[in-house]
Amino acid sequence: MIFPAAEYRGRISRLQAGMAAQGLAALLLATPADVFYTTGFLTRFWESPTRPWFVVLPAAGDPVAVIPAIGAELMGRTWIGDIRTWDAPDPRDDGVSLLADMLSALVPEKEPIGLPMGLETHLRMPLADFETLRARLAPRHLVDATDCVQRVREIKTAPEIAKIREACAIAARAFDRVPDFARPGRSLADVFRDFQIALLTEGADWVSYVAGGAGPDGYGDVISPAGPQPLRRGDVLMLDTGAVKDGYFCDFDRNFAIGRASEPARRAHAALWQATEDTLAALRPGLRACDVHRLLSEGLRQRGMTPSGGRLGHGLGVTLTEWPSFTPLDETPLREDMVLTLEPGCVIGDGRIMVHEENIVLRADGAELLSPRAAPELPEIRP
Amino acid sequence: MIFPAAEYRGRISRLQAGMAAQGLAALLLATPADVFYTTGFLTRFWESPTRPWFVVLPAAGDPVAVIPAIGAELMGRTWIGDIRTWDAPDPRDDGVSLLADMLSALVPEKEPIGLPMGLETHLRMPLADFETLRARLAPRHLVDATDCVQRVREIKTAPEIAKIREACAIAARAFDRVPDFARPGRSLADVFRDFQIALLTEGADWVSYVAGGAGPDGYGDVISPAGPQPLRRGDVLMLDTGAVKDGYFCDFDRNFAIGRASEPARRAHAALWQATEDTLAALRPGLRACDVHRLLSEGLRQRGMTPSGGRLGHGLGVTLTEWPSFTPLDETPLREDMVLTLEPGCVIGDGRIMVHEENIVLRADGAELLSPRAAPELPEIRP
Repeated sequence: MIFPAAEYRGRISRLQAGMAAQGLAALLLATPADVFYTTGFLTRFWESPTRPWFVVLPAAGDPVAVIPAIGAELMGRTWIGDIRTWDAPDPRDDGVSLLADMLSALVPEKEPIGLPMGLETHLRMPLADFETLRARLAPRHLVDATDCVQRVREIKTAPEIAKIREACAIAARAFDRVPDFARPGRSLADVFRDFQIALLTEGADWVSYVAGGAGPDGYGDVISPAGPQPLRRGDVLMLDTGAVKDGYFCDFDRNFAIGRASEPARRAHAALWQATEDTLAALRPGLRACDVHRLLSEGLRQRGMTPSGGRLGHGLGVTLTEWPSFTPLDETPLREDMVLTLEPGCVIGDGRIMVHEENIVLRADGAELLSPRAAPELPEIRP
Repeated sequence: MIFPAAEYRGRISRLQAGMAAQGLAALLLATPADVFYTTGFLTRFWESPTRPWFVVLPAAGDPVAVIPAIGAELMGRTWIGDIRTWDAPDPRDDGVSLLADMLSALVPEKEPIGLPMGLETHLRMPLADFETLRARLAPRHLVDATDCVQRVREIKTAPEIAKIREACAIAARAFDRVPDFARPGRSLADVFRDFQIALLTEGADWVSYVAGGAGPDGYGDVISPAGPQPLRRGDVLMLDTGAVKDGYFCDFDRNFAIGRASEPARRAHAALWQATEDTLAALRPGLRACDVHRLLSEGLRQRGMTPSGGRLGHGLGVTLTEWPSFTPLDETPLREDMVLTLEPGCVIGDGRIMVHEENIVLRADGAELLSPRAAPELPEIRP
């Protein structure tokens, strides 16, 4: 187990407090992140979309895992005592009756069962099976429990923060190695490969995310895999990673100049760094997510830059990205012990952008960095 | 682009033939695999659960991408010409109106719109948004299109088979390196890390899946991440990987004895290998998925072994696992150019199992290996 049972019991009791406030008789969870968060069940087997997995929280008491038999052994090594399995995949009934019977026994008729249905959630089960489940549970009804789950998961405990800090430290050491393999003439594909090897060598359990780009005045986007194009002198190279340690992610990027970058690229990097610096100093619990968007975008505009569209940062934890989103529309209040990324981006021109990212934990008195702070000047890799 | 536009046009026309047979006016797709399959849009950004992504196939003509603006640049480099974006995440309306308006303009009232809702599918969008979408589309109605999608995707084209073969060759070279780093006293965590590095070094773009186990008479399960326990002389070590090349997966495992394995472990490995060998010889189009389960489990029983529960193999392609499933219940007919894994497992006793896996493409005259065939004898790593 990654954490002692007390860590998970604390999570469950906070979720159950939210359930009580909403009047939920049970909470049904089915995504990898929610299952991992409540049970500690850590596997890369989610990569197989074949089978649904469920965890049910009663209003009081321990959660119940309703899962495919293939997971029984691994779930049995977590703190969860009540594990019910079926032999999945079963085209006749893929866990629906097992789950419906369990919920029907637990929840009085006409009582609500919570399920996250809102922004940033998915239904990780076949829709037709969900419809069957809903019919089987009636007159009990399913209601949205997004808020109940997000308000708990977004506040990280000390052991969680330590894991994210460890993932950040691993990535920071791997970024330090980039000058060893990012040379003119090498393809982005080779650079991405070497970067993943560096992340593993420095202690990542696995590397769930690497993206990036390169070009003379920035790059076209921030989510692309590597292509065969070679690095050239004068390029700005950006690498962004979500490396994983014990199921916890980092998510930050670094920019490098291959030789000497153009004046616009250096100016953009300086503006991104300084807007981040100012926002780091201004962050306090009580601000809202939209305030962070304003701080970052105003900081960029003051330095003559055009902020890129989309969000300028987000939550971080057991997935690469979590709510809230630093957009003008997200009014989520920032609270102590949220782990967040600041991710300002700016448009350089002609479809080129640059981005900069740091990971922090919000404390009562302000931001505490989890990623070692980037250098103010765009670092140059001298071939 | 990984493949020329003609490859994708062929896929769309086969999907549209299935849509016509079912009378669908449009097909709505939202999972990473379905979006990648129809557009060639390849990114690791799916790791972020924040935003929904959609592709709509009309009854005739090219598909339309309805996606977050952050993906516009990368989608613009695929063969897709009609790309509609919104600035996601938007808590007021996260693409629902854009998608509903597009579908409403495309589909006559009272006509059905297909969406995969069956076994091995998910609804990769917020459930509440789906309910809104469904209401907005009425009197058009959404119907299950699982069969329409699966019957097309399960037959691989020559370029797809070449990619899976390449992924298999990469993994095979990495397995050849295992004796270099799997030594007594090294932790499983270190072995898993070195194996991932070997996969990258041998050409994997990224490593989406590694699992395995070790023990004196087999291992407890096949989906666990590595722990700190050291390898010991006499252990059987199993490593299983889904390494990715251009978005295509391999999925096979290899067993190694650390020194000399126990007699039960060697007997189990020989039985698994021979049951696979016999099934490889017997495979033909026209068999059903359940027939493969029977062939493998009877082959094990004839050699005195107890087959493990669950499926004994499955489809393979743009995800680690695809349908069909080699269980007693899956009657999917096997057809030419399906890519499949044979994955017999047997119980050795006291909660210990061993598994063996190969990847094949089914040809008119039988199975053609994509993974280089394992040695019949359990290979021994001599410290």
